[in-house]
Amino acid sequence: MELEDSRVTIVGLGLMGGSMALGLQPRCRELVGVDSDSKTVALARRAGIMTQELSGALVHTDVLVLATPVKETLRLLELFIEDPPDVSLLMDIGSTKRQVVEAMELLPDSVSAVGGHPLCGKERAGFSEAEAGLFSGNLFVLTSCSRSTPSALALAEQIVVALGASVRQMEAARHDRLVAVASHLPYLLAAALMGSAESFGRRDPELWDLVASGFLSTSRLAASDLTMMIDILTTNQDMVQEALSRAQAELERLHKLLAEGEAGPLRGYLEPVQRRRDSLKDPGGSASGV
Amino acid sequence: MELEDSRVTIVGLGLMGGSMALGLQPRCRELVGVDSDSKTVALARRAGIMTQELSGALVHTDVLVLATPVKETLRLLELFIEDPPDVSLLMDIGSTKRQVVEAMELLPDSVSAVGGHPLCGKERAGFSEAEAGLFSGNLFVLTSCSRSTPSALALAEQIVVALGASVRQMEAARHDRLVAVASHLPYLLAAALMGSAESFGRRDPELWDLVASGFLSTSRLAASDLTMMIDILTTNQDMVQEALSRAQAELERLHKLLAEGEAGPLRGYLEPVQRRRDSLKDPGGSASGV
Repeated sequence: MELEDSRVTIVGLGLMGGSMALGLQPRCRELVGVDSDSKTVALARRAGIMTQELSGALVHTDVLVLATPVKETLRLLELFIEDPPDVSLLMDIGSTKRQVVEAMELLPDSVSAVGGHPLCGKERAGFSEAEAGLFSGNLFVLTSCSRSTPSALALAEQIVVALGASVRQMEAARHDRLVAVASHLPYLLAAALMGSAESFGRRDPELWDLVASGFLSTSRLAASDLTMMIDILTTNQDMVQEALSRAQAELERLHKLLAEGEAGPLRGYLEPVQRRRDSLKDPGGSASGV
Repeated sequence: MELEDSRVTIVGLGLMGGSMALGLQPRCRELVGVDSDSKTVALARRAGIMTQELSGALVHTDVLVLATPVKETLRLLELFIEDPPDVSLLMDIGSTKRQVVEAMELLPDSVSAVGGHPLCGKERAGFSEAEAGLFSGNLFVLTSCSRSTPSALALAEQIVVALGASVRQMEAARHDRLVAVASHLPYLLAAALMGSAESFGRRDPELWDLVASGFLSTSRLAASDLTMMIDILTTNQDMVQEALSRAQAELERLHKLLAEGEAGPLRGYLEPVQRRRDSLKDPGGSASGV
């Protein structure tokens, strides 16, 4: 099965599913979007995306993409145990992979399924923010399992390439361990920064006038969609806790160095950290005198 | 004394001092920059900034701006006790104010001094990043002290207005308490995120391939200029420790909520945090399905 001959159904037309719909529509035979929110459906239709109810969409679909929050994806996969969709490829694009892949493995042998996670995002959620080029130039993790037939995997790879992204094959546990640090920990640090500021801001609301670009950058993720984030945290609980413990230990070390008040040891901690951050794709710092 | 009739000397031509030099040059009679780094001096000259040695610059200067890291500012202020500059206004633009203002108060009565802190920055340090419009539209805190004569304060306000910024008068201790949360805490959280990632990245370097926009945004401040940051942390030690303790308590609370694994209480913590972050000037989130 080739992507260009396929009928693709995407369940969930938020930022990610909506962007996928816009990106894949010109590259497949037919594309159908499904969303439970009538405003989202109206927006998608206005953007030229055909929409249907899930049951109707499933009748003649070759590729079924679940672009829902992880817990909703798990719920749909459980329904599919009794009533498996007749598709060449079932894939998801959720941010945690172990529970999704375990649920895929409970499906009847007839279902070919592949886990997916595109490593990109945007400042705001929802179809109104969707764009065909969202995935372009970014990594797209594919997690295969016992339900991943070679032809389903090949079709998933065609989708990734059609979106302009690069395939990275990765086993579910390794994926979840790495994104706990690369993605879920930054979210929790941003939330803790906001929680701290809320506490100080209650005593002196002028605090909010003084927040500038550094605070806004560090706290940006705290505005993420809550249902999505809570599903992510609770389906990656152990590894997020491990990452969080590490960050707590790092902060404790910084606190001790600060209490000692010696520039030398503080610099000893901060210098390799600065060098590494500087080496990342989008390096940056804050204002500086000489 | 009016700014347009003044000879202004700026010591330190990094991002902040350099931007101030570019912004004030068309608004004063003469502007001179001072920097100990010969490359910086060459860059500034190429951009049309006249430069001199500090001793020479001080001979006929009306306004002296210290745009150096805080500890260097404190060192210069100590030298000025014995050898006070004959200026209408001495000001600094450092990120912490208590120690600077205390040092200003040790100066002879003949010196008129005002503390300053422009609340803006940029992703990279150095004169090469300087631009005249850096301060435009941002707050510029002025901290007066017993050395702040009304005419010196009026001149400092003229400078702020000439740069397109808004004056916010604020007492030193209140300033330091608020920026500990608004600026120094975000830096430490960014550093702890990098420290954590470094630890996990040693075990699996593929981590670095998976860092995307959320990680980069949260960790951005960790690339800040080290001398500047260490001076800031060590001259605001008590209030930074207080802010850090608060953040550690928030993370501990998040860790407990995560360990309990119940979506409801997690949402109870994260929802007000999300609402507040969404209300800030530059709201944003990460990718989302529906």
